Amino acid sequence: MPLEPTFDSIQHAATVLKGVAHVTPVQTSRSLNNELSASLFFKCENFQRVGAFKFRGAYSTISQLSEKEKKHGVVTHSSGNHGQAVALAASMVGIPSWIVMPENAPEIKKRGVKSFGGTIVECESTQKGRESMLQDVAEKTGAHYVPPYDDARVISGQGTCALEFLKQVGKLDIMMAPVGGGGLLSGTAIAVKHERPECLVIGAEPQLADDAFRSFHSGYLQSLNPAVTIADGLRASLGKLPFQIFNTYVDDILIVSEVAIIQAMRLLWERLKIIIEPSCAVPVAACLEYPERFKGKEVGIILTGGNVDLDHLPWNKTPH
Amino acid sequence: MPLEPTFDSIQHAATVLKGVAHVTPVQTSRSLNNELSASLFFKCENFQRVGAFKFRGAYSTISQLSEKEKKHGVVTHSSGNHGQAVALAASMVGIPSWIVMPENAPEIKKRGVKSFGGTIVECESTQKGRESMLQDVAEKTGAHYVPPYDDARVISGQGTCALEFLKQVGKLDIMMAPVGGGGLLSGTAIAVKHERPECLVIGAEPQLADDAFRSFHSGYLQSLNPAVTIADGLRASLGKLPFQIFNTYVDDILIVSEVAIIQAMRLLWERLKIIIEPSCAVPVAACLEYPERFKGKEVGIILTGGNVDLDHLPWNKTPH
Repeated sequence: MPLEPTFDSIQHAATVLKGVAHVTPVQTSRSLNNELSASLFFKCENFQRVGAFKFRGAYSTISQLSEKEKKHGVVTHSSGNHGQAVALAASMVGIPSWIVMPENAPEIKKRGVKSFGGTIVECESTQKGRESMLQDVAEKTGAHYVPPYDDARVISGQGTCALEFLKQVGKLDIMMAPVGGGGLLSGTAIAVKHERPECLVIGAEPQLADDAFRSFHSGYLQSLNPAVTIADGLRASLGKLPFQIFNTYVDDILIVSEVAIIQAMRLLWERLKIIIEPSCAVPVAACLEYPERFKGKEVGIILTGGNVDLDHLPWNKTPH
Repeated sequence: MPLEPTFDSIQHAATVLKGVAHVTPVQTSRSLNNELSASLFFKCENFQRVGAFKFRGAYSTISQLSEKEKKHGVVTHSSGNHGQAVALAASMVGIPSWIVMPENAPEIKKRGVKSFGGTIVECESTQKGRESMLQDVAEKTGAHYVPPYDDARVISGQGTCALEFLKQVGKLDIMMAPVGGGGLLSGTAIAVKHERPECLVIGAEPQLADDAFRSFHSGYLQSLNPAVTIADGLRASLGKLPFQIFNTYVDDILIVSEVAIIQAMRLLWERLKIIIEPSCAVPVAACLEYPERFKGKEVGIILTGGNVDLDHLPWNKTPH
């Protein structure tokens, strides 16, 4: 495996995922298009296995591990969809998995990991706590670490989503994805610039977790301030490899307010009748906040996942 | 137009709707099937135009009106999806529509009717108030009445959904739909018994609005008690024509508790990642409450609509 993801490695991951990952549908909404004066196409990875695109990277990576690498199982740290994806992918490949999760992770996420056959290892809810526990488990078990985004194989897997999307819709003026650690946008950008070089690739990020925005526009990898955005899937630091890929393949990164994220999330629930996580709403929030950038354009948006705590919806929150 | 819907009239309605109504997708969930020990297929009419199957009956009826019938527009009474469907269908055909709605109808439904070009006429929130206002508007405007369910043309339009569903999935052991006024289940039963006579057709109804259950099992059309079920789309009295059709074509009607409806609704939100109204959850609630009836079977379920008030979800209700 090369150290950098390429179009070829994305195509190879697509072959590996064939018949295993769902070919997720693309949805549109006439009324939404009228309102925004643009043609939006939504790639519904909320319907993907484990309810998120993360299955693509996890399965394609784990199933391509060498016999030696997978001999003692896999380990990762995650409070979200990546942990569930690794647990399911490992079960499918027939190896054990350990998922390091903060002790205060939502019960629903823990249940998800368990139901897919993963073993949960609790840790302190800090970056340091996660990393030292990960190290610990890896040493004790010999399990191979599957990173959430800063990895060529994982990025190649995530890139299969845009490849599939382009096959479904053909031409697009703009392709958008949200940015957390940057794995999805990296794979997306490589795939799009190979298949449709004229298509702009734009990332969208919460203003409250704007390290990718600052890194991209300054040219230096910036650190993340403690991230309190509602888009919980995007509370990750931009990875080094994604940062490099952004510099070559990504056209722009836009930041959006929390208010716009909640508004966009509700708009998609009401118009598309589908359940999406707050993270998915971030590119749509960018369409609301920068309408002149999208007017009259055909815009592809990757809806990254649908794992939402239905007891705590943002518009039902009591103020405190 | 014959007084009774037939397979031919359903097929004709399908021709009329071709290219106008969406061909809605069929979804499945591996984890749900494992849990229920059955194979469930969900026909997603929540993705239909206006967010509900009601568009099928409204458009096919209105577009087939004679020049004389449609000369002065159309009128109906509805607090729900039928009103929105009539408003949109009338606009598409190029005639005015008046929708009689109770003065306390949710703002979101009123907005829907207006956005589709309908004129709202408010009435008292009683059956009598609705009917006398309907009469009034019809007399003043000369508009043609488009009933919500007790009508051969409307039933034929609703039957197109099952026809399409069977084309998508092929063989089924059981076909299920919820029962309110009975229009959908009537059209469904006629279509299914023509195409797949061996397939059982089962209606599902809230126990709190069990007039169809009592009528079907007693052989006499029974009246509806004041219906307080959470399944707001099913708070309608069974129609005369649907009742007759049930006697010939429907195999059984099951009733379910409110608790099971809420549980089933949440289960579908979580597993399918789609937004469905409480009414849609009623057949799934029947699968939860009568598991022995569905074990090992291939079951088709029509998900009727996705118009939900996101500010008042049943599991977020504060007790009072």
